[in-house]
Amino acid sequence: MTAPTLVDALVARLGTAHVKTDEDSRIDYGTDALKRGRPADVVVLPGTTEEVAEVVRICAERRIPIVPRGAGTGYTGGSVPTHGGVVLSLERMNRILEIDEANLLAIVQPNVVTGDLQDAVEKVGLFYPPDPASLRQSVIGGNVAECAGGPRAFKYGTTKRYVLGLEAVLPTGEIIHTGGKAVKNVVGYDLTQLLVGSEGTLAIITRIILRLVPKPPQQTTIRATFPDVESSVTAVTNIIRARVVPAALELMDGDSLEAVARNLNVRSLAPEGTAALLLIEVDGIVEAIQEEAARVEDACRAAGATEVLRARNETERQELWRVRRELSLSLKMIASLKFNHDVVVPKGRIPELFALIREIRERFRLRIPCFGHAGDGNIHVNIMVDKDDADAIARAHEAEGMLFAGVVALEGSISGEHGIGFAKAPFLPLELSVDEIALMKRVKKAFDPEGILNPGKIFD
Amino acid sequence: MTAPTLVDALVARLGTAHVKTDEDSRIDYGTDALKRGRPADVVVLPGTTEEVAEVVRICAERRIPIVPRGAGTGYTGGSVPTHGGVVLSLERMNRILEIDEANLLAIVQPNVVTGDLQDAVEKVGLFYPPDPASLRQSVIGGNVAECAGGPRAFKYGTTKRYVLGLEAVLPTGEIIHTGGKAVKNVVGYDLTQLLVGSEGTLAIITRIILRLVPKPPQQTTIRATFPDVESSVTAVTNIIRARVVPAALELMDGDSLEAVARNLNVRSLAPEGTAALLLIEVDGIVEAIQEEAARVEDACRAAGATEVLRARNETERQELWRVRRELSLSLKMIASLKFNHDVVVPKGRIPELFALIREIRERFRLRIPCFGHAGDGNIHVNIMVDKDDADAIARAHEAEGMLFAGVVALEGSISGEHGIGFAKAPFLPLELSVDEIALMKRVKKAFDPEGILNPGKIFD
Repeated sequence: MTAPTLVDALVARLGTAHVKTDEDSRIDYGTDALKRGRPADVVVLPGTTEEVAEVVRICAERRIPIVPRGAGTGYTGGSVPTHGGVVLSLERMNRILEIDEANLLAIVQPNVVTGDLQDAVEKVGLFYPPDPASLRQSVIGGNVAECAGGPRAFKYGTTKRYVLGLEAVLPTGEIIHTGGKAVKNVVGYDLTQLLVGSEGTLAIITRIILRLVPKPPQQTTIRATFPDVESSVTAVTNIIRARVVPAALELMDGDSLEAVARNLNVRSLAPEGTAALLLIEVDGIVEAIQEEAARVEDACRAAGATEVLRARNETERQELWRVRRELSLSLKMIASLKFNHDVVVPKGRIPELFALIREIRERFRLRIPCFGHAGDGNIHVNIMVDKDDADAIARAHEAEGMLFAGVVALEGSISGEHGIGFAKAPFLPLELSVDEIALMKRVKKAFDPEGILNPGKIFD
Repeated sequence: MTAPTLVDALVARLGTAHVKTDEDSRIDYGTDALKRGRPADVVVLPGTTEEVAEVVRICAERRIPIVPRGAGTGYTGGSVPTHGGVVLSLERMNRILEIDEANLLAIVQPNVVTGDLQDAVEKVGLFYPPDPASLRQSVIGGNVAECAGGPRAFKYGTTKRYVLGLEAVLPTGEIIHTGGKAVKNVVGYDLTQLLVGSEGTLAIITRIILRLVPKPPQQTTIRATFPDVESSVTAVTNIIRARVVPAALELMDGDSLEAVARNLNVRSLAPEGTAALLLIEVDGIVEAIQEEAARVEDACRAAGATEVLRARNETERQELWRVRRELSLSLKMIASLKFNHDVVVPKGRIPELFALIREIRERFRLRIPCFGHAGDGNIHVNIMVDKDDADAIARAHEAEGMLFAGVVALEGSISGEHGIGFAKAPFLPLELSVDEIALMKRVKKAFDPEGILNPGKIFD
């Protein structure tokens, strides 16, 4: 595949420093957070949109696959070169080009780290809400390609709500612009929203116009514990009935709490018998959030909360969030392999989802700590196994099939945040009909007639 | 075109009562709010999704154009059968199927009147924010097809933010489902958002799953008058800087105010020398909105407002809104023809837009009252002419060309709410490149290989 003519053509355009063929690079750029990689044939690091377009034309002429790559933090193998070819890393295109306070927008290159953008806009009193757990590593381009979510999505929506316009390179080499700086635009088809979440299979995003909002002046955090998942979901319903729209509504189950307690080496993080914990944050102006926090507390107590704590200051707030922040690392301590699934159901059906997970736990003898964004019905189901236990891994894969089928039966979706990549591609027909998949493939072909852009993703 | 075989096939499937070929029906269903119609060849009124699919198959076999139609309130001729064929009215599919309080969603058929849905969900404490001016006539299906906006879009977003899932019939006859009841879904391409705003050219929408939000408990309205448009825009910027996100931020210019004053037969509605009026509404819990209203007042005064009024009760609130509500009717009194354009610019550039409109007014000797959604930079530019004045009409068309070119130069868009239809199709190349239009046409072809669904719309 690495015909000299390809590498020569790439080097002639980008320079030796930006075309990598050494084994380390090929392996490093061939994997992501899924940890099921395949070495790239060549890695290129274009520095401009025009260079991206040149790389695409060089590959298109030769019908060589191109796999766009941001920070490589995806959980479904979206940036893995499963069909070989060129990995196109956007790491050199990492600048914030503009923060426009008057028009509440930012213009960025794709590889700006999400957390860095948040810091930059917050300095001028603005706010970029999407907050995937990876926000200190993942980049805006990847967030857009996958439509990243996070705890704040219940109130603020996911990445898609903030993407106003894109510059992108088509797999046929043309540079296009979609949307723009205007917050409303109904001229032609909404290609912006079509590209958001398309997992790098339709075009390579080279510039992003993002909508910002005013930064909420203050937050208050509340922690409530419950004897069962059902009562925590009742609390969520009560909160909504009380007309409060929290900025976060995070749920952690008993298994998750236990993992964090063990990792922090404390006996317990919650009252005995806690099967579910809610972390609720309200934000806004001071006058409003005190009133809203009181309503949240009432809603939790009415649902049977065993303990309700409200942070009185920033230190206490950080302390309440600590259990959630330590969670990811704590799970890693339980077992060496984590199958992390981001299923989503209508939030009223969360208790049924947890009942399903209990059944899966028992049937397949697996540890499955769960946590997630209760307001969105978006639950991270973590199947924990030892990487050397082939039998457990086999059971985990069976469990996945049962989980996905069950979620679809609950009117949910097999992915709310991570996308399909190649890891979930075999499960696509559980959720989409033959006609729907055929239509999506025709859309793919409208963008990529030769099928060279990120092949093997989304569709099996 | 009305070959007996077509009508016979349609009657055999739908029954005589639901296939209309009389001249009155053909004319009535051949026009919309643009008032530039063409009679339909046949009008059909299917009552179910399966019947819609049958009609499509009957037409597809014969390659006969199909034009889907909601309430016919569009301003760009989107539901006009410019290429003849069958007008498929969805008027019989007008039921609210479900309001799901626990999951904050509603499931509706396409021809539910938007205002009726709002009333129904508000009865149970929920809220469907999109509020196009036509909300008492227009229907959800049309709102989705055009991505309708309205005053509340600044805070709440346009229709697209509320569409979670769709059932639709493809021009090839298949019934598809996109999205679903889950508020997050990143499985495959976002066909839901692609269909929103596609003006009935990609598929016929037969069922809609809408996201709802808790109803804000209270509103407060403020009216501020300004000696020029610039200072009103400064007020908008100040309001945003004060971290208030109003539910409405409506701007009316001096010409618009004069039209309303004349229609209401009062000498003046605002202090002498008023060139711009802002209507600002904040909503939320009582504690918050009093504080926010105070900030809004300060922001307006700091920008040089000549008068700032705050409604102290619901009667006063209705009184403040009256000037805005009477506007549409008042404009009709000025002249018999209104070319109503919904241009949009980044909001900081509204003063430049108004400078452009002043230039257009003078150059083409036209009356052009303007009003709109200042928070979104979305301004309705109404070119008023007498329908018998051919010279004025010709000047109006020249003015349109200058307006659209100027808006694109201001980094704006030629349509923020009404869409392209056939009326604005000639102007599409002002905003989109040849490559972008070619790509959109390939997307169209992916859905509609024979080009039978609403031909002649969007693309010239």
